[in-house]
Amino acid sequence: MEPHPFHPVMEHAFTIAIELTGLQWVTPTALGDTRAGVYAAEGTITGPLLQGKVIPMSGGDFPLVRPNGVIDFDARYFLQADDGAVIYMQNRGFRWAKTPEIAEKMARNEDVPADSYYMRVSPKFDAPAGPHEWMSKHMFVGVAEKVPGANRIHYFVVR
Amino acid sequence: MEPHPFHPVMEHAFTIAIELTGLQWVTPTALGDTRAGVYAAEGTITGPLLQGKVIPMSGGDFPLVRPNGVIDFDARYFLQADDGAVIYMQNRGFRWAKTPEIAEKMARNEDVPADSYYMRVSPKFDAPAGPHEWMSKHMFVGVAEKVPGANRIHYFVVR
Amino acid sequence: MEPHPFHPVMEHAFTIAIELTGLQWVTPTALGDTRAGVYAAEGTITGPLLQGKVIPMSGGDFPLVRPNGVIDFDARYFLQADDGAVIYMQNRGFRWAKTPEIAEKMARNEDVPADSYYMRVSPKFDAPAGPHEWMSKHMFVGVAEKVPGANRIHYFVVR
Amino acid sequence: MEPHPFHPVMEHAFTIAIELTGLQWVTPTALGDTRAGVYAAEGTITGPLLQGKVIPMSGGDFPLVRPNGVIDFDARYFLQADDGAVIYMQNRGFRWAKTPEIAEKMARNEDVPADSYYMRVSPKFDAPAGPHEWMSKHMFVGVAEKVPGANRIHYFVVR
Repeated sequence: MEPHPFHPVMEHAFTIAIELTGLQWVTPTALGDTRAGVYAAEGTITGPLLQGKVIPMSGGDFPLVRPNGVIDFDARYFLQADDGAVIYMQNRGFRWAKTPEIAEKMARNEDVPADSYYMRVSPKFDAPAGPHEWMSKHMFVGVAEKVPGANRIHYFVVR
Repeated sequence: MEPHPFHPVMEHAFTIAIELTGLQWVTPTALGDTRAGVYAAEGTITGPLLQGKVIPMSGGDFPLVRPNGVIDFDARYFLQADDGAVIYMQNRGFRWAKTPEIAEKMARNEDVPADSYYMRVSPKFDAPAGPHEWMSKHMFVGVAEKVPGANRIHYFVVR
Repeated sequence: MEPHPFHPVMEHAFTIAIELTGLQWVTPTALGDTRAGVYAAEGTITGPLLQGKVIPMSGGDFPLVRPNGVIDFDARYFLQADDGAVIYMQNRGFRWAKTPEIAEKMARNEDVPADSYYMRVSPKFDAPAGPHEWMSKHMFVGVAEKVPGANRIHYFVVR
Repeated sequence: MEPHPFHPVMEHAFTIAIELTGLQWVTPTALGDTRAGVYAAEGTITGPLLQGKVIPMSGGDFPLVRPNGVIDFDARYFLQADDGAVIYMQNRGFRWAKTPEIAEKMARNEDVPADSYYMRVSPKFDAPAGPHEWMSKHMFVGVAEKVPGANRIHYFVVR
């Protein structure tokens, strides 16, 4: 089959490996959804277009867990590039297990194969004027590997 | 070069061709940014995974125009699938011209080539339980063609 | 009892009487909540600090209806002051009936007494530089009267 | 003058005294606004309708500083009531100094009188089902006292 003429051109920009800490739950919720909180303990940024670190304890994720088991991310924290620039990151996306067995394993924080769940995100960045300014005007897609107590997300810029 | 092992797999889901009407501007703004409004007059949805229409005047876009010329979308309106299902769509993204000449043409609502500007979006959907429910748990990227008074956005689901 | 030393000083700023049109529902929803849409057909703004109109069909409300019956507003539309200035309004708030009988009457769009339900909002404004700029830097509370097919909201600035 | 017939009835609900830590800045920004981050080190909640604490390092504020000097808050963190219930708080609002001299003192983190600046907020809460559920269906206004490295916000429920 021919590729679609407007098929997005995606380029690997960077990968963020992040350790998470703490966990808050609002439960039982009166809203149908369950709010949670988890925090960025530390992290590293590697890749062709950005290198640096996650600023420790500079924010975290405040997701909603939907009644159907879908986790709806609402993360925000700060990155620091190797040149010292500070960049604010907001991240939306979804995580869900493809089977009930995988969902149970993930709830117990056990390791599962990358193809047994869906974890995809789309971040936005507030970057300072200068070499990282391009990050504030491009869309990105992140493909995530969940590992117990951490995750590794590969970010691709939409060209 | 080898493709990245986590390169996103994108599949064309549907294309929305939308006619826009009205235009509001808050100007001169006190906030640094300029708020605008534009409305969904009508539209059609075609493609392998959804067919239907944009519900006329069911919402629009309320973008911010940044001091650097980047348009930061904040759209929300309703779709109706051919089976009658109503789906709420929220859309974030960016549009900017690659040269000042193209920016001037776009401001005058003239036609410009698709590769002379950047217009990419990432929508989220509130879909009813049933055949369209998958839309509420997947991320999407939209690649847009801007035409005067309208646009055509090709949406790809991130698998 | 002594009033609290930081009791908010509230001043009536203006009242917006708005006629609503259209109604969209995403139902049955897969999210636990139900998304709706309703639109600003027309409206008038009267009061000591702003006079003008709601710009017809310049936006509307895209509320979530919670499983417990609380309506969680997410409105956005444009106002026009008598001096011609255009002002963008975003509005969050809650509406719920104090008894099941009142809830049923409101669902049938019947008239009910103002003290039989709770309908309070807190808006934010993007106002242009100039005489209305103060609206962009103050908080407001709106106390609403719901009438069938319309509402009248009295806005008070928090001094 | 007669009070307005719909003048909001406000009742003091609780006061949150919070110590702040850390400070991140995205600067110089490419967006016109400047993003900052500051974190909730610890805090106490006292008052007639809620008693407890701010969960240490459970979130913070990610405000935008507007070109006109207005700080536009976007805070989110977790509270814990004395009965153990965990409550998620999101807070929007504004802070600005009434004169340039006060603005300079506040930028140097010096003490200033409560009537020399404007600091008002409007929070929303995700509370669990049970005794605190009312917090999820009422609007609130907070009147803030800024003290160096901390703040004390008096929250009033809109009845």
